[in-house]
This record gives sequence, structure tokens and C-alpha cells, in this order.
Amino acid sequence: MALIVQKFGGDALGDKGKGREVDLQDLHSSPPLLAEKFHHVARIVKQSVDRGDQVIVTVSAFGDTTNRLLRMAAALCEKAPARELDMLMATGEQQSVALLALALHAQGVDGVSFTGPQVGIRTDEIYGASRIQSIDGEKLRALVAAGKVPIVAGFQGSTANNEITTLGRGGSDITAVALAGAAGADSCEFYKDVDGIFTTDPRICPSARKIDRISYDEMLELASLGAGILHSRSVEFAKKYDVPLHVRSFLHNEPGTIVTAEDKAMEQVVVSGIAFNKDEAKISVLGVPDKPGVAAELFSRLGTERIVVDVIIQSTARDNTNAIAFTVAKKDFTRAVAACEKIAKDIGAKSIETDEKIAKVSAVGVGMRSHTGVAGKMFKALAESGINIQMISTSEIKISVVIAEEDMEKAVQVTHKAFEDQSEFAITEEKTV
Amino acid sequence: MALIVQKFGGDALGDKGKGREVDLQDLHSSPPLLAEKFHHVARIVKQSVDRGDQVIVTVSAFGDTTNRLLRMAAALCEKAPARELDMLMATGEQQSVALLALALHAQGVDGVSFTGPQVGIRTDEIYGASRIQSIDGEKLRALVAAGKVPIVAGFQGSTANNEITTLGRGGSDITAVALAGAAGADSCEFYKDVDGIFTTDPRICPSARKIDRISYDEMLELASLGAGILHSRSVEFAKKYDVPLHVRSFLHNEPGTIVTAEDKAMEQVVVSGIAFNKDEAKISVLGVPDKPGVAAELFSRLGTERIVVDVIIQSTARDNTNAIAFTVAKKDFTRAVAACEKIAKDIGAKSIETDEKIAKVSAVGVGMRSHTGVAGKMFKALAESGINIQMISTSEIKISVVIAEEDMEKAVQVTHKAFEDQSEFAITEEKTV
Repeated sequence: MALIVQKFGGDALGDKGKGREVDLQDLHSSPPLLAEKFHHVARIVKQSVDRGDQVIVTVSAFGDTTNRLLRMAAALCEKAPARELDMLMATGEQQSVALLALALHAQGVDGVSFTGPQVGIRTDEIYGASRIQSIDGEKLRALVAAGKVPIVAGFQGSTANNEITTLGRGGSDITAVALAGAAGADSCEFYKDVDGIFTTDPRICPSARKIDRISYDEMLELASLGAGILHSRSVEFAKKYDVPLHVRSFLHNEPGTIVTAEDKAMEQVVVSGIAFNKDEAKISVLGVPDKPGVAAELFSRLGTERIVVDVIIQSTARDNTNAIAFTVAKKDFTRAVAACEKIAKDIGAKSIETDEKIAKVSAVGVGMRSHTGVAGKMFKALAESGINIQMISTSEIKISVVIAEEDMEKAVQVTHKAFEDQSEFAITEEKTV
Repeated sequence: MALIVQKFGGDALGDKGKGREVDLQDLHSSPPLLAEKFHHVARIVKQSVDRGDQVIVTVSAFGDTTNRLLRMAAALCEKAPARELDMLMATGEQQSVALLALALHAQGVDGVSFTGPQVGIRTDEIYGASRIQSIDGEKLRALVAAGKVPIVAGFQGSTANNEITTLGRGGSDITAVALAGAAGADSCEFYKDVDGIFTTDPRICPSARKIDRISYDEMLELASLGAGILHSRSVEFAKKYDVPLHVRSFLHNEPGTIVTAEDKAMEQVVVSGIAFNKDEAKISVLGVPDKPGVAAELFSRLGTERIVVDVIIQSTARDNTNAIAFTVAKKDFTRAVAACEKIAKDIGAKSIETDEKIAKVSAVGVGMRSHTGVAGKMFKALAESGINIQMISTSEIKISVVIAEEDMEKAVQVTHKAFEDQSEFAITEEKTV
């Protein structure tokens, strides 16, 4: 008997982003009815209950509810106060928990719905992007011990002052992990419309495989592969509370990807996945005087402008000046260039060069700590494909290269192939948690 | 400067019972958009704020939300647990308060939305039909003193155990009166789609007039005129806490009907209104032995069957038996007849006669206490129209007659005329509260 937190998102409970309201009473409609979707989710929960597990469920707002509520708010008020938006948005999840409780009752399972505040999900006072401070784990444990299935509204909590808050992006996933941490759950299952996390995007690289087990740190480095599947903050939370996550499909019963603490077996796998990203642009500041404090000035002033810098390299030219190149998010690019032009003048740099057509490809794996030659193998694969490396950045478990945007797909493919051919991706027996 | 509670129902905030969801974003739709309805309500609130009043607002779920949620629940679960239904239903009002806060902000008014539980609306634990036990009046007073306009979700509260409850029929009106009582408001305004309470139904009697002022007790006796406008429980609450009610239209700025404590001026008005009702049926138990305890047995056994009896008369026949006739609600009629047949046998009565084609017409007025001849005038008017009176029942401020259903409209008209002609209806100067 295990204690499991099961999280179902808006996609499991309706047709997200369809821009229209699907009424539960559309009993004969297609695509599959909302009522059937709630019953489908209830059946998944019931399966675990019937197996003897204790289950805590958490859900997002169903279908397109969140967008619909945001449209309503926008129609009424241009500058909506965040507190009032949170009051409004919190109703979406509250409707979901009540409806799921009804579906569970119809299937003979004693589901009991709760708002976030009702299970003591205490947050700070940052409306719309609050952070969980504590949860009443005792109440949840008492409920499951009494044979109940608590269904907790995700994405929400309340302040010490009893004000309703929402958690912001990825909030429902974070609720799930926090519930698991507070209740001391053995695992936290995320039911998604994907089979799990893949070694890379199968649309780019058809030989991409589902990863069976991966460490929290690798998952965090593979954020771009997990983006839209698992928010980084929920992985950080899971690492902090040591809650194994299981990302799996709500469409079938096959196991998905388990994200868990690093273990010895993981180190056998040199590279766990290949991530990529073309949302960055490169800025090079040329002819920077070679004296102490210049780089510090450049980056601290960019920091003041709230521009997040990713990869940085510095090289020395023959004329005894340095070239400093770095990447920023494309959305910050225009602001970053304007700031750099001013800073360049102040620090006596010669000129600025920019390139928006770049991409970053990263190989990630905890096995890098114990295996050598990983970077060499990756660079060789890229060189053999005629791909020029513009920048290199490494961490303990990651090697990233910045290349021309047009080379990105090919770079992902050959890097994937380099490690895939040598069985250096994880190929473990599939097993259920 | 007055402290006013303003209550807006679902009809003020959308198209009730249209069976479809109106999206706030239907900006160019007709009938008038939901967003415009929220802004209209916000303008009414703003008018009072601009006049210098302190305002507490309470609202129902907008438009058809409540029915939509009930349909959803019905689609998922046949025997929905009341607790889960309350979790679901409570979201409708929460959405309304948040949306109204947004509309007020757009108009420069500092509206702050609250769920029932957030302003300490404590109820008993009867889900779906709970009763308010207490409200945190201090919090409300502090808010208005700080220049805020609290907007409180109607129809809901929470138990001592922090479980969400709803108040059942008329619940939003009761919330309004309870808020007014707890905050010590000077008046509680109900914005409805009618101009006020009328001396009788204008569809039956074209000379019916809006009543300017009426006492709580008269309003309670005129329940059938107020039905659908003001729930009896909210009038009882208002009487208990001595909160003047003002039933008025959200479509224009004219004063409506003030329901308040009885005063001397009211006694000048003999008859305040004519109520009628054809939802009752008559049962006569004939040949009842004339001995003590027989009537007690009859009515206590009907009470055990949860059948509510209204008018009762007893008459003595020549053979030394009694005839006992009484009326019950039509919906209970079949059950009542079945019960009576059994009881009649047990008490040795001869037979039962029934009549479903009856109506009750009542003249109500606190002036009856000090004026004589009221009953005579009413009976004369009915006699002159050839209307036969089957039963008569009187209270301190009411005279009711039971007549044939087909005579009802005529009875209302002639009774209304009898008092209207002699200026015995209230004709007071219109004045704002």
C-alpha cells in the first residue's frame, strides 16, 4: 500500500484552448464529452484505490475555464487588480474538485473536495504568483487514513490573512508536489497527454525514446524538453522534498518517466537527453579594454535592467582587448542591445555585434561526472556534419553549444545519434512505480 | 451619510433561465451583454458611493450560472452528496463578486470581493439549506470605514469546521439582510426587475399600485405578492434585526417599496394589499363524532405525515357530528387524502369530500387592528359579485376567504376596488430612503 498524489491537468478534464465552453450536458457530443472526461479521470483514481493505495488527487480548472475567466476579466477592467483576479481564477479549480468528487461518488469512491485554503495551503501575499509556505499534511493523512480520497484544488492557497491567492505558472503541478511533500507521499503522478519525457523531441529526431528514469537535476537541465510537461519549479520542489515524480499518460496504463533522486544506475547513462532552444539571441561586445572590473560592470548593469544572461564567453584578441559574447532571451533582445550600446561606450569598448539567428543544443546526463570524452564525442559529431560551434558552455552534467539557428535540427539529430548508437542513453527495464 | 447594503440578484447580472451561457466577451451581442450588466450594477453602487454613503454589496451568481452548474452535477452523479454540490454552487457567487469588483475598479471605486466564509458568515452544517449563525460585522465596518466597498458572495457561508455551505432558497436575500444586521446598516436595498411590491398583481387588477411603505408583518402575510421578489425568511430576518428593506428596480432610479417596522402612519391604511393563491386544495371530513380529542388526532397525524395545513374550519351538523374542513398545498393533496381516509376510519368519521378547484384571497393590513367593518366590507363586495365564500379565516391583520378557483380573479378585483375606492390603500408621498 502506497500513498500517491495524482495530478490531473485541464487537458485531462476537457478540451483546452478550444476557445469555447463545453457543457457537461452535451452528452452526445464529439469530441468526447466533458462528463466522460471526469469519469475517465475518476476511473484512473478508482483503479489505484481498488489496488489498495491511498490516493490524494489534485486538479486544475477543467478545459478552457481559465482562459474563459481571463477573457471575462479583460472585458470588464483593463487593469484588473491581481487580488480580484485571484478570487475569480480560484473558482475554476474549485469547480473541478467538486465535479470530480461527484464523478468519484457515482463510481462508489468516497471523494471529498477541498479548496486550497481548506487543506491549509498557506502562501505569501503575491497575488497571481504566490509561493506555497506550508500545507496541513496532518489533515490529509487523517483523511486518507479514514478511507477518503481528498481532492484538492490546485493552483491556489490563502494568505495568513485568509485572502485567496493563486500560484501562477505551473501552479497546479507545484500544488501536487507540495501536497506529496506535506503528506509524505511515496510518489506524485502527473497524468498528461504525453507518454512521458523523451530523450529529445520526437518531431525533430524520430529515434527519440521515452526516458524511464531520470534525476531531478537532469530534469531541470532538460527544462526545454519538459517545458509544457513539467514546470521547473515543481521539479525543484520535488527535489527539495525528495518526492519521486511519475510523468505518465492519462490515455493508457503504461508507465511513463520517473523523475527521482540520483542513484548509481543513473551514472551508467552518460547522456540522458538532448535539449534545444532557439529563444535566445547573441550579443558580442568587441574591443573591450583588458582591465579588471569591465566584465563586472557590463553584467551588473544588464542585471539592473532585469535582463537575464545565459551563456557567456570571453576571448582575448591580438590587440590586447577582449571580446565578450553572451546570449539573452529573444524577448529581451532589443532592450539588451540598447543597454549594451550605452555600456560599451562607458567602458570604452569598440563595437557591438548581434546575431538573432542562433540556437542552443545541450546534452545532459549525470553520467558525465564519471565518464570522460563526452564533449569530444559531441563536438566530433557536430564537426562531421559541418556544423560550426559559436559558443560552448558546460556544467557538471551538461554540455551546451551555441550554433546557427538553421543547423539546430541537424545538431539535435547527430548529437542524439552519437550517444544513442553507443547505448549511452538509458535503456532500463520498464517497471511500474 | 448612511450605511447601506445593496443586493443584486442573478437577473441584474445576466439573463436568467435562458439556458445558455452568455460570455462576457460577447461585446456586441443582444440582449445587452453580461459585461454591460456588471457595469450597470457598478454604476448603481458608484452613485451611492458618490453621494457619500458607505456601501456593502452582495450578489447572486450571474445569469444562468446556478442552473448550468446543477446540470453539470446531474450529468455526473445521480445522487450527488450535498456537501459536494455546495462546493460547486458556491463558485457561482464567487465569480460574481470578483467580476463586480473588476467592474467597480474600472469605474474608480475600490471594491473588494469576499466569499461568505471570508467575512465570517458562519452557518450550521445543513448542506444545501444551511442557516446563518453569525457574521463578522466588525470586519465589514472596518472595511467601509477605510473607504472600501466590500462585495460579499451571497447564498454561502462555512461551518465551524471550515466546510463550505449554501443557504438554500432565498439564500442571497437572507445574506443581504444578515449583512445589514451584522454591520448595523441603515437600510438594505434589493435591486430587482420589478418596481416594488404592489397592492395586488397588476396582471389581474390593472388599478394595482406600488406600495410605498409596508410593515414586516404585512409583508409576511402578503408572501404570495412578494413571492419571487422577497423570500419570507429574509423578511423575518429583517424584522428580527430591525433592518428596513427597500425593494426597488435596477432599471431606473425611482424609489420602490420600503418594508419596515410598523408605525402610526401605517395604521391609517386599513388594507395594504390583496394576496391570492390557488396552490391549495380543500379536504372536508364529514360526520366526525363530537367528542374531545378528535380534531387533535386528525391534525397531529397529518403533522406526522409532514402535511402543512393552512385554513381550518369546524362546523356542527344537526346529527350532533362535526364537519372539519381544511386546506393543504396542492402538491401534498394526494398524500393528504390518503392519510385522511385512514384517519377518518380510525376516528369514526363518515366520509371525506375534496375540492381541488379552490382559491384563497386575503386582504392584509395593520390598520385592521384599529378599524372596524373591514371583513363586512370585503364580504359585501364578494356577495355583490355573486361570489360564494366557502371558508373564512382571520388573523389580527388579515382576512382570508376560500372561494371557487374560477372566481379568484374577480374576487381580487372587487376586493381591491372596495378598499381602493375608499382611499384605504396607502397613498403616501413618494420619498427616497
